Amino acid sequence: MNDVKQIEALKRLAFEKKGFDGFLITNEAHMLYFAGFPGAASLLIPKNDESIIYVYSVNYEQAKAEGKGFRVEIVKRGEKLSTKIAAQIEAFKIKKLAFDMLSYESHRSLAKECRGVTRLKAENNLVWELRKVKDEKELALMQKAGELTSEGMKVAYETIKPGVKEIEVAAEIEYAMRKKGSWGTAFETIVASGVRSAFPHGGCTEREIREGDLVVVDIGATYKFYRSDMTRTIVAGKPSKKQKKCYEIVKEAQERAYQSIRPKAEAKEIDAAARKVIADAGYGEYFVHGLGHGVGLEVHEPPTLNPESKDRLTIGNVVTNEPGIYIVGFGGIRIEDSVLVQKGKAEKLTKGPYALEAE
Amino acid sequence: MNDVKQIEALKRLAFEKKGFDGFLITNEAHMLYFAGFPGAASLLIPKNDESIIYVYSVNYEQAKAEGKGFRVEIVKRGEKLSTKIAAQIEAFKIKKLAFDMLSYESHRSLAKECRGVTRLKAENNLVWELRKVKDEKELALMQKAGELTSEGMKVAYETIKPGVKEIEVAAEIEYAMRKKGSWGTAFETIVASGVRSAFPHGGCTEREIREGDLVVVDIGATYKFYRSDMTRTIVAGKPSKKQKKCYEIVKEAQERAYQSIRPKAEAKEIDAAARKVIADAGYGEYFVHGLGHGVGLEVHEPPTLNPESKDRLTIGNVVTNEPGIYIVGFGGIRIEDSVLVQKGKAEKLTKGPYALEAE
Repeated sequence: MNDVKQIEALKRLAFEKKGFDGFLITNEAHMLYFAGFPGAASLLIPKNDESIIYVYSVNYEQAKAEGKGFRVEIVKRGEKLSTKIAAQIEAFKIKKLAFDMLSYESHRSLAKECRGVTRLKAENNLVWELRKVKDEKELALMQKAGELTSEGMKVAYETIKPGVKEIEVAAEIEYAMRKKGSWGTAFETIVASGVRSAFPHGGCTEREIREGDLVVVDIGATYKFYRSDMTRTIVAGKPSKKQKKCYEIVKEAQERAYQSIRPKAEAKEIDAAARKVIADAGYGEYFVHGLGHGVGLEVHEPPTLNPESKDRLTIGNVVTNEPGIYIVGFGGIRIEDSVLVQKGKAEKLTKGPYALEAE
Repeated sequence: MNDVKQIEALKRLAFEKKGFDGFLITNEAHMLYFAGFPGAASLLIPKNDESIIYVYSVNYEQAKAEGKGFRVEIVKRGEKLSTKIAAQIEAFKIKKLAFDMLSYESHRSLAKECRGVTRLKAENNLVWELRKVKDEKELALMQKAGELTSEGMKVAYETIKPGVKEIEVAAEIEYAMRKKGSWGTAFETIVASGVRSAFPHGGCTEREIREGDLVVVDIGATYKFYRSDMTRTIVAGKPSKKQKKCYEIVKEAQERAYQSIRPKAEAKEIDAAARKVIADAGYGEYFVHGLGHGVGLEVHEPPTLNPESKDRLTIGNVVTNEPGIYIVGFGGIRIEDSVLVQKGKAEKLTKGPYALEAE
């Protein structure tokens, strides 16, 4: 992040290999990746000139201080960003401009401003080709985010007991992560108990946890903008036979998937490894989501691990491995780690016991 | 929220007044507003039939349980959402479809699937016309979010002292808000101290607060998806003369703006009321952002309060009032409240002292 290396890599990919002579970046996380600070309004990368960060006045001083290696252009009150960019595209004589994403209306407006001289083409995938392979600097931050998340999960095991509210558990987890150095939560903390645990995105409410409840705890710390993602399922009190049985199935599914995570593996095959364990045990219909997703500056990134994925893993990917079983009326069980794809055995960035019982 | 009333209001606006016979909603917060639960993939509202929530399997059970008053359609593995929606548009015989927002590519794909039979038109503003006027149910939640935020700010005053890190202050604030019932943070907490306080979006780092530092604390609690937004600026230790002087200017600017917040007022006039105080004191160039923005399910919503705004306030708007002075090398000062526009005197939803000194 904030590394000239990454702009250079995009230039090779888009300009040398694909024949573009300009790249317009508008996605917030993409800009954070290339510029190293949050708050840019747009980023214009020409083939043969200095790249430009556009910022509104509110972020101008921060851009000058933190946006290293870029020309910083202020968008003044009353100026229109797309007009400024179009003029610059003309000045740079860009003929074939790649962009990451534009709304229907922004596209129309920019195309109009460029008056047919510049061809626009959506090439978001090129940015993802870079972002999904984390370099050493990024991995150091993701390691740290993983450690902070694991610390938070310890607190979940200590806190969950009958009578405690879901949001109280969330309070303790987030506080512990913050105290250890977390920059914030990677996404909205999930502490979903009882019947609500059957909803994979159940959030976290004022519900009081009851004896015997399944509690799905899905959390993530952030460290210097890099995120982590981890889930454990914890029973408040003594688990039932069915809870134990389902838990063992999910655990086995996660382990099998983990064993198949390696460079060049097809993402859908990793998903299949977990899915087979759950299906063979007779719970196939209750595994209602894909196995996982990439994680980095955002919590949901490419590659995607599900039965339809066309992705293939490569060294430097960080992906979640999160099989689950969700049965309405009974509850849900999910176990998740963030895993680094590397030469040899994959490395879990989130660590911690796979216990079903609270402490 | 989650109120048939709101769908009915959209139908009146889009169908009766504007002549559309269908509305496609894809924005996450818009869907939360109409459907009352997070996790819908799309929402299709026909003129004369039952509205449909589209969900992926992962959120299907939650949609059935929480998405009241809608037909819930699952998007199965391998199915394409836009194809399903296009087929339904055809089945509903929709000829003139309004949509909120679509990416350039989604628009092209949907237009193609509709084969020229249905005209598509971006009408995001119609949804905002509704969302920016909060009803009583929404206001009760925003009141609560404001109270929780004010509780968090108390902790900021108690915690800020020389030697404490920015993220430690954030930890204590967020913990206190959570313990009182906050559903999460409305945005990434800002605790920006010393030179970093001059960056309006300075975030929150491991920096240790020093004696005499200005510390900008910008926080928000969330209650049942509704957000709040509040800023105070606190000096660690004894404020300097210049700090006191600038603080008094910002405070006066905020008070003048507050006094002009009333139904039918032009948003740019409210901004001007604050801007004049700061400019008259000789600091005009250092007030580098607009005065405020709407707040609700999202932290930045219409209406916009800045010198170019064409918005006019109405009863039920909740807007921030947040003038500031930011001087590189000296630091920044911002004071912000979330304010409800109502008949008579506007009501502050965030409450608390306007003290410059920590406790």
